[in-house]
Amino acid sequence: MTAVGQLLRIGCAALLLAFGSSGPSMADSAAEEQQIRALDEEWVAAVARKDAAASAAFYAEDGAILPPNGPLAKGREAIAAVWQGLFGLANFDLTFAPTEVHVSSAADLAYEIGTYALSFSGDHGPVNDRGKYVVVWKKDDGAWKVVADIFNSNGASQ
Amino acid sequence: MTAVGQLLRIGCAALLLAFGSSGPSMADSAAEEQQIRALDEEWVAAVARKDAAASAAFYAEDGAILPPNGPLAKGREAIAAVWQGLFGLANFDLTFAPTEVHVSSAADLAYEIGTYALSFSGDHGPVNDRGKYVVVWKKDDGAWKVVADIFNSNGASQ
Repeated sequence: MTAVGQLLRIGCAALLLAFGSSGPSMADSAAEEQQIRALDEEWVAAVARKDAAASAAFYAEDGAILPPNGPLAKGREAIAAVWQGLFGLANFDLTFAPTEVHVSSAADLAYEIGTYALSFSGDHGPVNDRGKYVVVWKKDDGAWKVVADIFNSNGASQ
Repeated sequence: MTAVGQLLRIGCAALLLAFGSSGPSMADSAAEEQQIRALDEEWVAAVARKDAAASAAFYAEDGAILPPNGPLAKGREAIAAVWQGLFGLANFDLTFAPTEVHVSSAADLAYEIGTYALSFSGDHGPVNDRGKYVVVWKKDDGAWKVVADIFNSNGASQ
């Protein structure tokens, strides 16, 4: 075998390693989904502590939150302010959890659909809101971060 | 060069073709984004025609719409019913367009953030609602289909 042939064999083996077992189309989507579900649990815990900075840290630097009856807020500072506003509600309580999580084949993008339960003391008495949400995640330097977070109420018929 | 070496060279070239120019990490994201933006324009046109079946056909078979003040609706039949309800509003008019579209590296998942303008004649006078949305797309048998569609109002301060 020539030196060139030898080099091609080595290059070919390297290609197989790069794209064979751990390539973009072979990501372990179940493990990635578990990572996202674990982050959701940490996020709910940060919300329970009313920690706006920690809640905003789950988003990408250019992430966005799209709350009902308010403008889109982009970037962690603006997102932290939205969370701080929620945490200021009297007797605020919020939990949420995904009902489904889907990860792209290269595990660089994912989305979840979920439900939330929000309660607080409003100006006209207690509010108990049930709703639903979509959160989009992207892999950012090896870590999943939220790029879009939008939710709305199920309404009076909830 | 041995026959084995020759086979490896051929196999190596095939691998380069498979993963080099058109592989999952090399998808033409600009072209994919344009496909999605073109679908959005067709979708807006279907809504302008008040064509519920055509509007629902933009969603995947297991797609979901998550309207404010109503339950999540999954599957094209349920989604068409939601659109039919909107189309039944007096003087209904709705337009929407993405402000950003992002495609996964393998072009199998994408999401867009956008804005909408909705107007209709309500029980208490004309309603002019401005809001925002997130739509998640997946590549389904080579065609982009909506898997999640959620929106909410900017509120009174819009």
